[in-house]
Amino acid sequence: MNKEIYNTIKKYDKIVIFRHEYADPDALGSQFGLKQLILNNFTGKSVYAVGDNVKTLNGVLFPMMDECDDETIKESLVIILDTANTQRISDKRYDLGKEIIKIDHHPIIEQYGTYNYVDEKICATSFFIARLAYELELMISPATATYLYAGIVGDTGRFLHNNTTARVMDMASKLIHDKADIQAVYNAMYSRSIDEVRLTGFILDNFKMYSDHLAYYILEVADYEGIGVEFEKAKEYINTLANIDGVKIWVSATFNKKTNFYHISIRSKNIIINDVAQAFGGGGHQFASGVKTSSLERFKLILAALNEKI
Amino acid sequence: MNKEIYNTIKKYDKIVIFRHEYADPDALGSQFGLKQLILNNFTGKSVYAVGDNVKTLNGVLFPMMDECDDETIKESLVIILDTANTQRISDKRYDLGKEIIKIDHHPIIEQYGTYNYVDEKICATSFFIARLAYELELMISPATATYLYAGIVGDTGRFLHNNTTARVMDMASKLIHDKADIQAVYNAMYSRSIDEVRLTGFILDNFKMYSDHLAYYILEVADYEGIGVEFEKAKEYINTLANIDGVKIWVSATFNKKTNFYHISIRSKNIIINDVAQAFGGGGHQFASGVKTSSLERFKLILAALNEKI
Repeated sequence: MNKEIYNTIKKYDKIVIFRHEYADPDALGSQFGLKQLILNNFTGKSVYAVGDNVKTLNGVLFPMMDECDDETIKESLVIILDTANTQRISDKRYDLGKEIIKIDHHPIIEQYGTYNYVDEKICATSFFIARLAYELELMISPATATYLYAGIVGDTGRFLHNNTTARVMDMASKLIHDKADIQAVYNAMYSRSIDEVRLTGFILDNFKMYSDHLAYYILEVADYEGIGVEFEKAKEYINTLANIDGVKIWVSATFNKKTNFYHISIRSKNIIINDVAQAFGGGGHQFASGVKTSSLERFKLILAALNEKI
Repeated sequence: MNKEIYNTIKKYDKIVIFRHEYADPDALGSQFGLKQLILNNFTGKSVYAVGDNVKTLNGVLFPMMDECDDETIKESLVIILDTANTQRISDKRYDLGKEIIKIDHHPIIEQYGTYNYVDEKICATSFFIARLAYELELMISPATATYLYAGIVGDTGRFLHNNTTARVMDMASKLIHDKADIQAVYNAMYSRSIDEVRLTGFILDNFKMYSDHLAYYILEVADYEGIGVEFEKAKEYINTLANIDGVKIWVSATFNKKTNFYHISIRSKNIIINDVAQAFGGGGHQFASGVKTSSLERFKLILAALNEKI
């Protein structure tokens, strides 16, 4: 598998790397990690990392996203990372490419690649890229190590979730040994403005119990913008409700004025909830899923469906 | 060093293990980790883990503390873990023992042992015990692995602080491989009652900026007991103020009605602050220290001294 990916990359002079919209550290970490890995281990290749910039991450922990014209993509190998279905890909020009490699760790929704490499057992797409790099004995620069470490930290909740295995810790050790700047990762990922701290206070003051075991909160635009926090950051507060005694499922609804949708995040300790997310048009992992919905009525239906599972 | 410790333990039939008061996961993790390790690797030894019970940890993640009479201690090897000075030892009968082994990773204040093993470079006393176990190729049970993992998680802030090295990750990997129940550790350490969640909200609503770079809060007994939280838990909220942009030092003062002291916790990103703690009679690590003080006037003096360092 690794060798196949290596040989396909080798064939192309131009490579364009995509990932999902509303990118998180694993999407960006695997994307920039792979880009850096290719640049450091092949000569004469042009590599582009495309998609929307994420204000809190690009230009902070990761470089700004690359510009890439249609003509370039038409001559390129396209690699799409961390994205289960084409609808979620940020930058829809992925289908201009000559061939497509899909690399992912989400449950399979759509096998859209010419080559599809999906490992649902691993914690992060960044782990996939790191494993590939070590198994092929590629040169890993401090930047590569830092990006990939960020992705693993993002998708394991910093070694918290039950996808944290001995192999994950071994990989973290190797990346730190290869000079991952873990304090830079944490400073970028956990840095909070005083406004963001106030938003946490707002959520803890206003969350509701739907039942004894289901907690939720709703953030309207005025709630977070009134405090001075942008949507991209505001939608990431779901784990403000993690680890409350008795709470088995916790849910957030954050309204996005650009899409006119509430972005719903659903988390659970050990109740499978992605079937509910999928039933309402969303997706994700067993214990960490998301849906978009246009109304609070529909949000209440999702809460009711989740409550049925407890 | 490891072999010396092993041989001293071997000499005694009875061993009593102490650690500091207001025990945290590293104190209890190293204590019960070592106890379990001795029981699993020697025959015919009686091992006692003594000190005050910690309501949120003993009987949850760790066993309840052992009872041990004076006569037993008089015949015993005493091992004191994770404690820089005798004043902080929970249970003052440590000096009844035949010999004392001190094992610690805090800056040296007092070398009170017959044998003193202090490694300031490592993240946790639990790491010391784990390293000893692996280097001596001792049998490590799932319980031992779980206790030691808890200690490492406690003192690294779950792989957050700058004491998180590749060796720490290697050790975490080994302990998970040896069946540390990491979800049990996290459930116990991060479980929050709705009351505790409300206390977080209270702190985020009420913290003050002493200057642009120094944040602090004060918790009176009525503040935390009014919400339903006990002192032992309330004093652990200091990192509610961690990672706020621009904040270089953050401080909490939590009043303890049993001692009639404010327990001051001081944290910093990279400004050395334990000299200030020591100047006011406290101690701890460079970036994580504590002091006890009887008045808010004196607390304000500590804040002023800390602000001088920014």
